[in-house]
Amino acid sequence: MDSYSRDAAGPSPPLDLSHHYSRASIRRKDSEIKAIYKYFMIPGIGNLAGGLPNDKLFPFDTLEAQIATPERWEPTPNYGNTEQATKARAVVPRSLVASSHITVPKAVAEPNPDKKIDLATALQYGTAEGYPALRSFIRQFTKEVLHPVIPYAGGPEVLLTCGSTDGFSKTAELLVNPWFDDKDAIKDRPGMLCEAFIYMGPMSSIKPKGVQVVPVEYDSEGMMAEGPGGLADVLENWDFSRGRRPHFLYTVTMGHNPTGGVVSVPRRRQIYALCSKYDVIIVEDDPYWYLQYPSAIRKQAEARGASQPCSQEPPKPVKSSGYEFIDSLVPSYLSIDTDGRVIRLDTFSKTIAPGCRLGWITAQPAIITQLRRITEATTQQPSGFVQAMVAETLMGPQPEATATFRGLSLRDKHTFNGWNTDGWVRWVAGLRGVYERRMNTMCSILEEHSTLVKQGRFTDEADADWGVVTKTRIMSFDWPRGGMFIWVRLMFETHPLWGAKGDAIPVIDGEALSTGLFGFLSQKPHLVLPAPGSLFAPTPEVVRDRSWAYVRVCFAAVDEDDVTACSQRLGNGVQKFWQVTSVKQMEKYIAGPPSELDEAGMPDQIGFPIGC
Amino acid sequence: MDSYSRDAAGPSPPLDLSHHYSRASIRRKDSEIKAIYKYFMIPGIGNLAGGLPNDKLFPFDTLEAQIATPERWEPTPNYGNTEQATKARAVVPRSLVASSHITVPKAVAEPNPDKKIDLATALQYGTAEGYPALRSFIRQFTKEVLHPVIPYAGGPEVLLTCGSTDGFSKTAELLVNPWFDDKDAIKDRPGMLCEAFIYMGPMSSIKPKGVQVVPVEYDSEGMMAEGPGGLADVLENWDFSRGRRPHFLYTVTMGHNPTGGVVSVPRRRQIYALCSKYDVIIVEDDPYWYLQYPSAIRKQAEARGASQPCSQEPPKPVKSSGYEFIDSLVPSYLSIDTDGRVIRLDTFSKTIAPGCRLGWITAQPAIITQLRRITEATTQQPSGFVQAMVAETLMGPQPEATATFRGLSLRDKHTFNGWNTDGWVRWVAGLRGVYERRMNTMCSILEEHSTLVKQGRFTDEADADWGVVTKTRIMSFDWPRGGMFIWVRLMFETHPLWGAKGDAIPVIDGEALSTGLFGFLSQKPHLVLPAPGSLFAPTPEVVRDRSWAYVRVCFAAVDEDDVTACSQRLGNGVQKFWQVTSVKQMEKYIAGPPSELDEAGMPDQIGFPIGC
Repeated sequence: MDSYSRDAAGPSPPLDLSHHYSRASIRRKDSEIKAIYKYFMIPGIGNLAGGLPNDKLFPFDTLEAQIATPERWEPTPNYGNTEQATKARAVVPRSLVASSHITVPKAVAEPNPDKKIDLATALQYGTAEGYPALRSFIRQFTKEVLHPVIPYAGGPEVLLTCGSTDGFSKTAELLVNPWFDDKDAIKDRPGMLCEAFIYMGPMSSIKPKGVQVVPVEYDSEGMMAEGPGGLADVLENWDFSRGRRPHFLYTVTMGHNPTGGVVSVPRRRQIYALCSKYDVIIVEDDPYWYLQYPSAIRKQAEARGASQPCSQEPPKPVKSSGYEFIDSLVPSYLSIDTDGRVIRLDTFSKTIAPGCRLGWITAQPAIITQLRRITEATTQQPSGFVQAMVAETLMGPQPEATATFRGLSLRDKHTFNGWNTDGWVRWVAGLRGVYERRMNTMCSILEEHSTLVKQGRFTDEADADWGVVTKTRIMSFDWPRGGMFIWVRLMFETHPLWGAKGDAIPVIDGEALSTGLFGFLSQKPHLVLPAPGSLFAPTPEVVRDRSWAYVRVCFAAVDEDDVTACSQRLGNGVQKFWQVTSVKQMEKYIAGPPSELDEAGMPDQIGFPIGC
Repeated sequence: MDSYSRDAAGPSPPLDLSHHYSRASIRRKDSEIKAIYKYFMIPGIGNLAGGLPNDKLFPFDTLEAQIATPERWEPTPNYGNTEQATKARAVVPRSLVASSHITVPKAVAEPNPDKKIDLATALQYGTAEGYPALRSFIRQFTKEVLHPVIPYAGGPEVLLTCGSTDGFSKTAELLVNPWFDDKDAIKDRPGMLCEAFIYMGPMSSIKPKGVQVVPVEYDSEGMMAEGPGGLADVLENWDFSRGRRPHFLYTVTMGHNPTGGVVSVPRRRQIYALCSKYDVIIVEDDPYWYLQYPSAIRKQAEARGASQPCSQEPPKPVKSSGYEFIDSLVPSYLSIDTDGRVIRLDTFSKTIAPGCRLGWITAQPAIITQLRRITEATTQQPSGFVQAMVAETLMGPQPEATATFRGLSLRDKHTFNGWNTDGWVRWVAGLRGVYERRMNTMCSILEEHSTLVKQGRFTDEADADWGVVTKTRIMSFDWPRGGMFIWVRLMFETHPLWGAKGDAIPVIDGEALSTGLFGFLSQKPHLVLPAPGSLFAPTPEVVRDRSWAYVRVCFAAVDEDDVTACSQRLGNGVQKFWQVTSVKQMEKYIAGPPSELDEAGMPDQIGFPIGC
């Protein structure tokens, strides 16, 4: 049934996908305490049953903050005016003084829990879906603005998480039966589909469960549906001697980490159809949905002197979100999820801050119910501190809140009306502006350094033909269509010391050259560090065969002032590296930085700082 | 080897307990990203490798709060002066104005991460152990104040958690191989020891893993070591046809939930020796360690006209914590943990607020390393919002922090020096004071109502002998030695309608009377709700055989003003219930409150509010 005939008959409910739940998940039931809930509701009841501490004894009388106004950062155009999208300093960031003071008071009288934001409730035990006010805002934003078209009857539900690592971990707990080669049959081995290079966070959840990682080929958009190594190829020609045909797919579809692609709607339809055919759950991890860069294709074409694509304006959405910015973005897999097989992970890590440890899952209601039960047994809910502060930022103070604190301080009298949905959309559009300009700055500089130009053709050192200009391609990349990263292919095969392993002449292979590049770049005057491709290779085969040829370059983390300088150091460094012709010198770079900088000093109890 | 000879030779390192780790846990390794860590340390390096957002783009410019001074609540005496411990209103709580304003600024220059508290770091990605400043405070407090005696070499490490439900869930992930009766051998079935009545939170983690719950008998202290059903009995006479002999024990030892006991040091030594002999891991969940009530034994004796115990002052600790309050408390199992087999769960849920979702685990370093790896794959770390605020409360502002904000507002100029360890100990001692007075208030009232006194002996209704006074015991309980709960045994066997199931006369059994009591108490004028004992029964046998005879009464949650009123309504209600002699009337109470208050109105995606 296509989506049109579904519409004609009204949307169908989502499919029952409970056959995908793990054995342990199936055992999860609701708490028996529900049975006495009816007594809790009796008006005036003296509740001596709950085991809660008394909220009068919480030491926090208020939580407060200075927060930015939503207009702090200047957006870029929604349909790719490249002039504006380039000017890294188009608008001087408004001063930190352009901020508001927010206060979450101890207690407000608001009777509607979906509007109540106070410490007596936010710092008390709560329900696993999340703090009612914040959950209600997120639920509405998700259903009405972010995904205005919901193909199945009733639409999805939401569940707050402690960020998307937590969200993925709970999803893996829901979907995966742990598998051990010394006791389980190979036919039961679970598998996870993903792009051939991925953000490795999910590995730490699925590797201990014995999940087989099955990479799918990608292109500048992201995961490929057709062609050798594409999703159709992998699923149709599955070799059951390796285990179960993978029953879920992990994918980052907007600003892919590390490859920078954004999956178009036509590609989404192809991939979704395959997942539907082979009954595969789609886990869509989307931290960068608002970081889509409409200027990237044109700017890339301009930089390379190619003709520009005629129009980048995507087709009008079936139903407007009410915001041009949102309408201009490629929509989620949820927008075509007729079966209810999409589990989408969102996070505040990139829109507010990673330290929030706050995000949400969107999926069909039955799946959310199971994930809620997992949440009750693990994190219970995100911290009330962050939930209250984010709720206050987004939803503004209650009238009572202002009244409660009148007289305490001048600052408290200022009325702050909350960002609300308008402010929230404006804020993320401003962030997109900042990051899009940075992306353009860095890509322009890398573009300039991607070809090594030499005056003279060297046949040997003494015999140069100075009339010839040699152009050697040393880096290849697409300007990212979204996200925070440029995925750069180093053309080590053009390096003067290049040689395949086993050659008679003592030249150096690609993997070694890659190691040498890191040693080289880490020294003065370059002093710059991209991330090695091997950190994003989900299988030993990908590590071995091709990861060494790639680096991921993040334009998001360094300070605004450093974007240009770091990009130039990187570009110059790579250029200089191609001019290293001494094997002995190269071997020094391969040996890396001095050993006193080794990880030996890290105590075993201290983990590495976590990032994406 | 006893602890003395260990001391003589210097303490031994903790045992290698890795044979207790689950198959999945053994597979957890450190992230490969550690390999490039050495490059990160190079001074001046332009880091384009990390995938972090830029901290300048976080919308929060400050986090602030009004917090109580540590002296807000009046403590009770450390060695049980019952006079002072009784006066519920001994000191009027100081006004909310007796508070300080704290500010976490955007960025401070402090180079030592253990002292740095700012948003640029707290709201960025971090390490799984927790925010360095907060972790360092907790580590020092744990090792030097809370557990000044650490029997194994080097002592324990700490790991921050998202509260103790999260801490237990990670501990269960570490220790348990999930077991399924349709595919695994019965001999592999894992088991968990616990008291015969327990806080049921851990059930939601272990039931899906197929863990067998093995209850151990308890008395007024807590878990019993000796005697029928005690720990020795259970372990020595283990029937292997039921599965593995349990390899871990879950216990709340200070203010047991629901039974109110505090396990003495001699009892601890007995239980620890058994765990050592049978290689059992002890998971000590201790949310109420600071809520030990030295007045309870004397007050109970006074109320019952018994002679008072001569002295309650415990033996001086081997090594003082530096605080009389801490020294006066029964110490943790960690204080006798020569093997390193104790995994202790602490939480800020009761000392600050449940909504923190913040706690920590203390255990031998190798165990903390494994739990850290689990944390990296799940929650990553607690929210930076709560970590920064709690760190700021405990550790006070950095000098730079004040300087950064000078001039912005008068309020910011006030210097706040942080509670520090002195303030933190004073704060929890104050909380103990509040709860100890409440406990005494409620116990005194229940004590008065625990015996039904009747003028006249009724042989039948028409023939009363008015000269006789009948005293019927209707409730039995120990005054809790700690925690937030009174565990009350209802003496249903003295109720006029009592009768065992199957009696020829249509009288009502204990379970039905118990149900009737809830229906009765939920009606005017009683309107009061204790928690039914069945909510704390970890096995169907305990539910069936005896849980119906108990209720748990919480004196912590209701407002100060309501403690007396609710206690009286409960006491009066139980007394009146014993005067219900009509079977027809009793059947109405058994039917419960009107059905419109049923749980039917709760949508499936909404869980029940979580509490302990």
